[in-house]
Amino acid sequence: MSVSVKVNPDLQKERDNCTFNVTELTNLIDGGPQKTEERKKREEMVFKEGIHIDEVPSDYLSHKEKYELAVKKACMLFKMMRRLQEEENAGMENYMALLGGNLGSAILGDGSPLTLHYVMFIPTLMGQATVEQQAYWIGRAFNLSIIGTYAQTELGHGTFIRGLETTATYDAATKQFVLHSPTLTAYKWWPGGLAHTANYCVVMAQLYTQGKCHGIHPFIVQLRDEETHMPLPGIKVGEIGAKLGMNGTNNGFLGFDNVRIPREHMLMKNSKVLEDGTYVNAPSSKLTYGTMMFVRVMLVHDVCNYMAKAVTIATRYSAVRRQSQLRPNEPEPQILEYVTQQHKLLIGISSVHAFRLCAAWLWDMYNNVTAELETGDLERLPELHALSCCLKAITTSDAAACVERCRLSCGGHGYMLSSNLPLTYGLVTAACTYEGENTVMLLQTARYLVKAWRTAAHALQPTVSYVGLARTGRRSPPWDNSLQGIISGFHTLAAGKIGLCVSQIEKRQASGMSYEDAWNMTSVQLTAASEAHCRAIILSSYYTETEKMSRGVSAPLRLVLTQLVELYVVYWALQCLGDLLRFTSISERNIEELQNWYEDLLVKLRPNAVGLVDAFDIRDEILRSALGAYDGRAYERLMEEAMKSPLNKEPVNESFHKYLKPFMQGKL
Amino acid sequence: MSVSVKVNPDLQKERDNCTFNVTELTNLIDGGPQKTEERKKREEMVFKEGIHIDEVPSDYLSHKEKYELAVKKACMLFKMMRRLQEEENAGMENYMALLGGNLGSAILGDGSPLTLHYVMFIPTLMGQATVEQQAYWIGRAFNLSIIGTYAQTELGHGTFIRGLETTATYDAATKQFVLHSPTLTAYKWWPGGLAHTANYCVVMAQLYTQGKCHGIHPFIVQLRDEETHMPLPGIKVGEIGAKLGMNGTNNGFLGFDNVRIPREHMLMKNSKVLEDGTYVNAPSSKLTYGTMMFVRVMLVHDVCNYMAKAVTIATRYSAVRRQSQLRPNEPEPQILEYVTQQHKLLIGISSVHAFRLCAAWLWDMYNNVTAELETGDLERLPELHALSCCLKAITTSDAAACVERCRLSCGGHGYMLSSNLPLTYGLVTAACTYEGENTVMLLQTARYLVKAWRTAAHALQPTVSYVGLARTGRRSPPWDNSLQGIISGFHTLAAGKIGLCVSQIEKRQASGMSYEDAWNMTSVQLTAASEAHCRAIILSSYYTETEKMSRGVSAPLRLVLTQLVELYVVYWALQCLGDLLRFTSISERNIEELQNWYEDLLVKLRPNAVGLVDAFDIRDEILRSALGAYDGRAYERLMEEAMKSPLNKEPVNESFHKYLKPFMQGKL
Repeated sequence: MSVSVKVNPDLQKERDNCTFNVTELTNLIDGGPQKTEERKKREEMVFKEGIHIDEVPSDYLSHKEKYELAVKKACMLFKMMRRLQEEENAGMENYMALLGGNLGSAILGDGSPLTLHYVMFIPTLMGQATVEQQAYWIGRAFNLSIIGTYAQTELGHGTFIRGLETTATYDAATKQFVLHSPTLTAYKWWPGGLAHTANYCVVMAQLYTQGKCHGIHPFIVQLRDEETHMPLPGIKVGEIGAKLGMNGTNNGFLGFDNVRIPREHMLMKNSKVLEDGTYVNAPSSKLTYGTMMFVRVMLVHDVCNYMAKAVTIATRYSAVRRQSQLRPNEPEPQILEYVTQQHKLLIGISSVHAFRLCAAWLWDMYNNVTAELETGDLERLPELHALSCCLKAITTSDAAACVERCRLSCGGHGYMLSSNLPLTYGLVTAACTYEGENTVMLLQTARYLVKAWRTAAHALQPTVSYVGLARTGRRSPPWDNSLQGIISGFHTLAAGKIGLCVSQIEKRQASGMSYEDAWNMTSVQLTAASEAHCRAIILSSYYTETEKMSRGVSAPLRLVLTQLVELYVVYWALQCLGDLLRFTSISERNIEELQNWYEDLLVKLRPNAVGLVDAFDIRDEILRSALGAYDGRAYERLMEEAMKSPLNKEPVNESFHKYLKPFMQGKL
Repeated sequence: MSVSVKVNPDLQKERDNCTFNVTELTNLIDGGPQKTEERKKREEMVFKEGIHIDEVPSDYLSHKEKYELAVKKACMLFKMMRRLQEEENAGMENYMALLGGNLGSAILGDGSPLTLHYVMFIPTLMGQATVEQQAYWIGRAFNLSIIGTYAQTELGHGTFIRGLETTATYDAATKQFVLHSPTLTAYKWWPGGLAHTANYCVVMAQLYTQGKCHGIHPFIVQLRDEETHMPLPGIKVGEIGAKLGMNGTNNGFLGFDNVRIPREHMLMKNSKVLEDGTYVNAPSSKLTYGTMMFVRVMLVHDVCNYMAKAVTIATRYSAVRRQSQLRPNEPEPQILEYVTQQHKLLIGISSVHAFRLCAAWLWDMYNNVTAELETGDLERLPELHALSCCLKAITTSDAAACVERCRLSCGGHGYMLSSNLPLTYGLVTAACTYEGENTVMLLQTARYLVKAWRTAAHALQPTVSYVGLARTGRRSPPWDNSLQGIISGFHTLAAGKIGLCVSQIEKRQASGMSYEDAWNMTSVQLTAASEAHCRAIILSSYYTETEKMSRGVSAPLRLVLTQLVELYVVYWALQCLGDLLRFTSISERNIEELQNWYEDLLVKLRPNAVGLVDAFDIRDEILRSALGAYDGRAYERLMEEAMKSPLNKEPVNESFHKYLKPFMQGKL
């Protein structure tokens, strides 16, 4: 068990054989050498303080201790952030890196109780408070005199916002709103930091005034005494209990027993309630789409980070781990030599690039549409909404599957928390149900697609223009087994699936079903059509954006980037063979060619597998994985991590004397 | 927040509308009314003691406390088992229920440190020790004077047993074996109970005698002093650290520094080392297949239990949860009304039946083959081995996917540990990598299938006879859109995929590749062929066994059981459309019929969904789920569980005064 700082020789050999310049790719991912340098400097500053180092890894702590450690570390982290901002007079990038990126999660592995203060509380104040309200609240929130969160979801109500039960009833006599939870299911449930951390909260509630309900509106409510932190009268607040992951986020519940707040605590940038109780409507409710879409684009970035971590860990470990036999009389090969292992890992690497470029493309579109919005042009808003819904669903579920596949590809050792794969899965899978449950998201997109199909006679928005072509009933062109041909095949099949859904719905209506029932009966197929649409979008944006991006890069790197796109496109073609066979003219011969192409790409990419994950440039302190560290000392680190278990601090656990020995002696 | 013991009215209505007799199905699953009664009586006895009740749920404990609680409960559980056995003079059923079944896991939610003593240590002694050795060891093991475990896997070696590094070198001078771990990767890693619980262990090690290595053999080694429990000299033992699940199992590592044991501690029922060091070979090494296959059949039973729990929880919750709108101006519907939700749940219910019947069928086959073995007939052993490999892989991965789909179908609330879905996933996913990693398992079956294809001219064993039919090159018959037609289509496609693999391998060999490299290059397709074979087996055994079983049941139940088989077969046909289109003559029209058939089955089965999961008859104490309890008080129970969190025992956590307040005041 000698301790060596040298890199595992198998891993070193992989690096020696890499055909492209890893730093060039890192710079490309970061957005230029300047950005890479800034990121590295920021990481260096954060880690030199050592607040990422735990005496006892939090995996071994009790639930309560985990929370206490999370509070301590969150305070230290945000204190450091304040200093960074002051020193550098920097923009939002430090905030972004610490809140959403890899850096924050390196320190607050399993979530932070302060995240929602920055990610939801302050932005909501900025977006929904009047100028006067902002003057009063935002300063206090920024300098952390108060800590807030955002409470929308209730125990009985999630996706369907209209169903929320919490009421805010205006009492003109006292000029107050009365907040109340009429039932148990009306309790707010889930908001991060709500349980024991925040002392203020933006609460979404059904607004009643002058005897009429005006729907959901935001109110700012004080929850706890600023000095003692005791819950205020009428406030029932606590934590919702242990979860699969994110046990540092302090998710809470919140009930109101007729809690009164001043009229001015309704956030009135959009709608208003006047002193006499008159309700004044918002100019446009579509504007709130903006935040939701912003959050979803951020989410795609997040899942890229999780995937990049998982494939880095699994790929490096696969270069270090040797097992079984490929050829007789040879030593056990690196498991990366097995084509089945390459099949599990390389698609993960290319998915990171695909999603990252798709998110960048969506981000551009978001900015364009937002600019159009400000000129009063709402035309592309439904398209953007539809896109963000299906992309949220597909990227989160693909990412969760990718992380889990990586974990399983490490065999039993992936089951160890010290691999960091289980925790990563816990974080990424959460995204499948928050910010819009994935099936609901797919059905939202499906509504848009069915509408697009039906109005295809008219001009269609760019991302669904293919529907128009299909709608005209033209036979699909002969199959073309090239990248562009496959992508065009995906458009054909997506259109085919949408068309089939529309005709199913119509058939069912013709047989006497209501539109709603026909929709529901067809909804399994509708989610599949929505997924097909999304796959076509991701494939074509990945292909196009890589083409653009590759122009400025060196030839060896361009080759690898192109191979990754090919791998991604061919992989998905092989996954979707049933649909391609149904809706395009692909032949058995084409399929065999695709299969050979795919296996050929695995062979070509395999020597660069380690270089490709190295290019994600995830520091060991961020990776936090015994299996995936840069030096490849997987076994030594597994043992070192094991030795940190408190159970290993003493040779005999007291349960032997207390239970086991009496039991063995028949005396228990 | 009134507490009521009444059943949720939505759930009650479901039960009122169930079309079949739930008890009849329960009896069928248990194997007769008598068996149901015995099971219920056993459960009653176990739970009346109350040892399943935790003051603080173990989710909130530290890792060390979890272990201490697990030891305490394991001792109490096995003490009770001893008493049960004495009182009833019963067979193995009590043991089975407490060790493998739902009952043990109800008490030891996240694994037991004593399981391997019963499941591996004692059976290995029974299978591999001589009569004299048994006389010495088995009594002591049965009455728990010693507690053992079984150590095979090493830090660097899992699937490939030949690669194990631990050595046992015979020293004829002292008549001792010297056990040694020459490297860090030679450390035993993973055995349950090894860390701090067991004081003896069966160790698998490379046997050296007279200068020659004779491969892996079993040795019994004392690890700890029987009185003090201190590790003996030369023994390095401890725990491997926290894991995704099974944190009560006390998985350990074990290293030897030239530890000497008497010659008699080698288990010598098969091979022997004589006093002078002469090695005497085992009569047949094939006999060890038996235990492995027994364990795999048990594993299929286990995954059925996990799936049954998950679908029970998700189905009941889907009847209680109301969300969104299906039709305008109607109240929010039960989410079970959504066809997408039915799509997620009903396949889970039918999978439980499919796997259970398949396991029973495999068990019969196992017993027949074992009987043949005893007459010296080894012919069907490879077939059985191939079957058990692919079934292990497919049932565990399908079950893991099913449990996770159920969790996600509960939205965010499935992420709460109080749903019991995350813990269930942790247990079921472990089975994907233990007892043979799934990809390795599929490739083992593929070897058999390729061999079957090549020898198809000769007589083939029953489960691969379809390969012979395909091999003769007959065109597949016209597609028949009935259950039997679909199942026969699956045989055709499985044969097609095997044939394609064989021709791929041959093509690659013809182009100059070695057989081993050609095999590796084709291995992604080989795993797919193996999966296709397995699907055909499961579909046909489910269909045939249900036909048999249904003869004796009432008409209403028979109808439902038939619908479940139809659902399962049609679901998998729709999942495998690409393969069916490639290898059979299925048409677009057939596909649309299948899709309608499937949606129709969802409608027909939906009213019985709750009845079907009630029939699994999993007591609340076993289910341990706030979302899935029999009374459907999901929200009340979520809140009750939340209130058990130690964080909710005080209104203000001390971290406020220690960190948060100083931080807010800029004083940290």
